[in-house]
Amino acid sequence: MKPAGQKRVVTIVGLGLIGGSMAITLKENGFAGHIIGVDKERTSEEKALRRCIIDEALPLNEAVAKSDLVLLATPVDVLTDLLPRVLDLVQHQVVMDLGSTKAPLVASVREHPKRGRYVAAHPMAGTEYSGIEAAQPNLFDHKVMVLCDLGDSDADAVAVARSLSASIPMRVVELGSDAHDLHAAYVSHISHISSFALALTVLAKEKDEQRIFELASGGFSSTVRLAKSSADMWVPIFRQNRDYVLDVLDEHINQLARFRSLLIKRDFETFYRLIEEANDIRRILEGSRQEPVFEME
Amino acid sequence: MKPAGQKRVVTIVGLGLIGGSMAITLKENGFAGHIIGVDKERTSEEKALRRCIIDEALPLNEAVAKSDLVLLATPVDVLTDLLPRVLDLVQHQVVMDLGSTKAPLVASVREHPKRGRYVAAHPMAGTEYSGIEAAQPNLFDHKVMVLCDLGDSDADAVAVARSLSASIPMRVVELGSDAHDLHAAYVSHISHISSFALALTVLAKEKDEQRIFELASGGFSSTVRLAKSSADMWVPIFRQNRDYVLDVLDEHINQLARFRSLLIKRDFETFYRLIEEANDIRRILEGSRQEPVFEME
Repeated sequence: MKPAGQKRVVTIVGLGLIGGSMAITLKENGFAGHIIGVDKERTSEEKALRRCIIDEALPLNEAVAKSDLVLLATPVDVLTDLLPRVLDLVQHQVVMDLGSTKAPLVASVREHPKRGRYVAAHPMAGTEYSGIEAAQPNLFDHKVMVLCDLGDSDADAVAVARSLSASIPMRVVELGSDAHDLHAAYVSHISHISSFALALTVLAKEKDEQRIFELASGGFSSTVRLAKSSADMWVPIFRQNRDYVLDVLDEHINQLARFRSLLIKRDFETFYRLIEEANDIRRILEGSRQEPVFEME
Repeated sequence: MKPAGQKRVVTIVGLGLIGGSMAITLKENGFAGHIIGVDKERTSEEKALRRCIIDEALPLNEAVAKSDLVLLATPVDVLTDLLPRVLDLVQHQVVMDLGSTKAPLVASVREHPKRGRYVAAHPMAGTEYSGIEAAQPNLFDHKVMVLCDLGDSDADAVAVARSLSASIPMRVVELGSDAHDLHAAYVSHISHISSFALALTVLAKEKDEQRIFELASGGFSSTVRLAKSSADMWVPIFRQNRDYVLDVLDEHINQLARFRSLLIKRDFETFYRLIEEANDIRRILEGSRQEPVFEME
């Protein structure tokens, strides 16, 4: 622990939407006194310096050596290589990742001698934009921070992760890494596949019918918004969470096929009943909105 | 036409989200001087009177007799009965409907002696909420008003429809009623089915896993927002536009099945390429946002 009055040095590896937003947030709220940025792209480091999102840019090993806390905010395929390398460099430091899948990453360091210094984390927030240009100060406010497999982390490392979350503030939810990946498939990953597929459906039609999008209204924008999301971020997520995503995708296709079959049979009574069942999503979306610490959006 | 200085009397039949919002808008912008409300529910009429959304509530035949313009804003299944009845009452009045499907409605009055007094219209705007409580003043601003089969309407009736649209302001797009129904299936109706199905997919899972929604973030809310939409409004739309909705739904299921097959084969290269293709939706969503007269949201 730092002596009172001395602020933490935080390294952020991966200066994109998540890493950049975390840098701005932790500097603004005083959790971090000094932020070191590390990115494979020199131009991202330069932009982050120019916009005062980070205080300095350093090579990974120098950055880790100077830090109290290292946050890994790269795409998830990079994380499985990066995390063991970072743990190799660690003495007293705490390391957290901020990736969207957890089980494969946790497995990659299960036997690492420094496993205790690592806390697996997933802030449930994002936008359809990516890159340091998309970084914003309030991205994480009042969202959920999932912390996984906390029994495998040192107590002081867990305390740092909780303290970081409270500083934003984010509400901590503890889950096993496998349960996290299943839940994330349901409430995040499938939404993205559904949006990508909907965009492709309509774009295919646009080839014949130039004017189709003149009619697109707010409802359409809302359902295809996530289709703007980056392939560099999402393909590694779908690769790592393939099995759960497949399960949920099968269920989603089945639900759509059920609507299809009702249309074919003109069974609009059952169709009506299914819409009423779907309306129950109100309870989830609006119930949580009344709870000030945990907003959906 | 009214003499200069004398404001139009407008009747609105169906005091829900669309009818109520139109009442507020046309009174505020001066297009209407006096608004008469007609609803099958006396409580809706009373609420609309109490909130000063309408100036008086009358039975249908009295309302039509006193009006210059009659707007029909009921669910589309009611419209096919209502429109011929209203045209039976009409002398000089102009009648517009504001429904989400057009071809069956237009067909229902094809041989009506007063067909010329009717203009088929669809304001491309809405929210997932319904009822007079959901009415709002800016719902239609800068959205698209589709006017269909204008060759079948009298010139002065078309002029009133254009003048109403310009007063809000909305941008007029002219389409044949059949083309409208096809386009609406792509940019509106399929989004709703996709949201309903996604909500059911996740709600089914929730039965086993109480905590799943703690993790839901903004992306999830965005894709399932439309699943809150009313069955009373949407079942008649799906019934009337069944054939086109089935075509688009088949395509959407095929796109999802393609993603499924790529996951099964672990062909993440093609998966990556498809996401990049889907990203092209940016061009549509953001291109139109730069054009001030036509916003998506």
